[in-house]
Amino acid sequence: MENRSDPLIVEVAPRDGLQNERALIATADKIAFIDRLSDAGLGVIEVSAFVSPKWVPQMADAAELFAGIRRRPGTRYTALVPNRTGLDRALAARVTDVAVFAAASETFSRRNINQSIDESFTTYSEVARAAAAAGVRVRGYLSTAFGCPFEGDVPIDRIVALTQRLLDLGVYEVAVSDTIGIAHPGQVRRVLTALTQSIAPVRLAMHFHDTRGTALANVLASLDFDIATFDSSAGGLGGCPYAPGASGNLATEDLLYLLHGLGHQTSVDLDRVVEASRAIQPLVGHPLSSRYTQARLAVDART
Amino acid sequence: MENRSDPLIVEVAPRDGLQNERALIATADKIAFIDRLSDAGLGVIEVSAFVSPKWVPQMADAAELFAGIRRRPGTRYTALVPNRTGLDRALAARVTDVAVFAAASETFSRRNINQSIDESFTTYSEVARAAAAAGVRVRGYLSTAFGCPFEGDVPIDRIVALTQRLLDLGVYEVAVSDTIGIAHPGQVRRVLTALTQSIAPVRLAMHFHDTRGTALANVLASLDFDIATFDSSAGGLGGCPYAPGASGNLATEDLLYLLHGLGHQTSVDLDRVVEASRAIQPLVGHPLSSRYTQARLAVDART
Repeated sequence: MENRSDPLIVEVAPRDGLQNERALIATADKIAFIDRLSDAGLGVIEVSAFVSPKWVPQMADAAELFAGIRRRPGTRYTALVPNRTGLDRALAARVTDVAVFAAASETFSRRNINQSIDESFTTYSEVARAAAAAGVRVRGYLSTAFGCPFEGDVPIDRIVALTQRLLDLGVYEVAVSDTIGIAHPGQVRRVLTALTQSIAPVRLAMHFHDTRGTALANVLASLDFDIATFDSSAGGLGGCPYAPGASGNLATEDLLYLLHGLGHQTSVDLDRVVEASRAIQPLVGHPLSSRYTQARLAVDART
Repeated sequence: MENRSDPLIVEVAPRDGLQNERALIATADKIAFIDRLSDAGLGVIEVSAFVSPKWVPQMADAAELFAGIRRRPGTRYTALVPNRTGLDRALAARVTDVAVFAAASETFSRRNINQSIDESFTTYSEVARAAAAAGVRVRGYLSTAFGCPFEGDVPIDRIVALTQRLLDLGVYEVAVSDTIGIAHPGQVRRVLTALTQSIAPVRLAMHFHDTRGTALANVLASLDFDIATFDSSAGGLGGCPYAPGASGNLATEDLLYLLHGLGHQTSVDLDRVVEASRAIQPLVGHPLSSRYTQARLAVDART
């Protein structure tokens, strides 16, 4: 287990990353990728989502992935579940950690999961009860917390209320998520000032996208609020779904370079994450957005 | 003039940016680019370098640029000068602001300007005296301050000593420069803690490259030390010369998005910088590295 005084990284490339890539990756290649991420020492890896293959074909092999990966002691392997059906599939695949995905914007919730925010909480309440009965931990995402591609600004009191509502379901932490990569440190400070008035930092994770280049600056601002859990994606896998061609998730390598430079210990070997990214890059068919890894690959190509 | 309580941006794309691009840009296109940057309200624009065209063919048209650009009231137009000959060419071109370029690493100094550090200070001392006599302001760069591609780490006491030595020549500020884009906020805090013990923050500018994605986080860390001047390059123009394919200068757009998000006022219109970058992108022949501009172009392409 991680020492909670040092930052914990939740690696989301296999799910949040690959789900937003155009290329379909073969199951065996995904397994090799996840095994490399395990070997790098990542403490939490989001493997897949038990969602309808009709809507998300990239995630159709969720059960095969959980059957095929090596489970490294000390790493937790999680999956997104949208409802009770998804949870049951996850339980059948021996998943011990799941996540539910709420939105801070009504329009985004309807477009993304075809439910209102209230309806999604009814669904997730059922998921949380059944998960607890099965001894499975539940994480909560709060998407579009820093802005919605359809509605624009999201009021801070709504972010606080929905984060608390997720915690009231029994989730162990809420990943406050900048789905469209619009957050900047000024906004991060305002949101975290409000959230930490009533919610312990240990219950919060930050999930930044680097669409506008601010993700690491946002992490730096979050550390001042004692946030110790950050989501990131190996290579920066996962474009921004609302801006094709733009970069998406904060890259795990870039995050590690920042955290290690600040003197934080993590369980993760940066070089091995680079190797995992280097191996997946030809399969996604475009240069990965991780600045750190691109610099490494460029130097390697030259020497 | 800028209000010094708000950040000042030194726009380096026409010089530091284009010098490190492979494509040769036509003089008329450079003039149009610089005029667009003026229209965006940038307070300082580094136009070119009066260096030998034999070594730096991209800068051969320095005099033509100064003759051709529109000089917006309130904007200062600067040029790099390596020696007295360069200064004389600059003076003949009616340049009112010049910059000299010292290195914190002996090996880098010899490879970059073919002089030892001591020899370069002798040269710059002559430049500074002649510039002062001509009523021209001199800026100093201290390159490789956060690491050298040949020597690796640079001792902090050497950074402090060389910064002071530049100031002793009479330069009005020193741009402490992360030439290879290796700095992270932990290092920035250590360097600025040391520098600001004896040097006023108003005498310091920070020049970050975004090669490893940390540039904005470094800016955020620098603001805590009351640093108020930052170098950046429209579009992120300028690759990293020691890692072809990797990104180079911090992008002006990304910097503006950060600063404005923090509530700082600048003189600069972000939209107009995006337009300047959009216009130059086809001429450099590759996607610009500014995350902000790429997100904007991707959204525009979709709508």
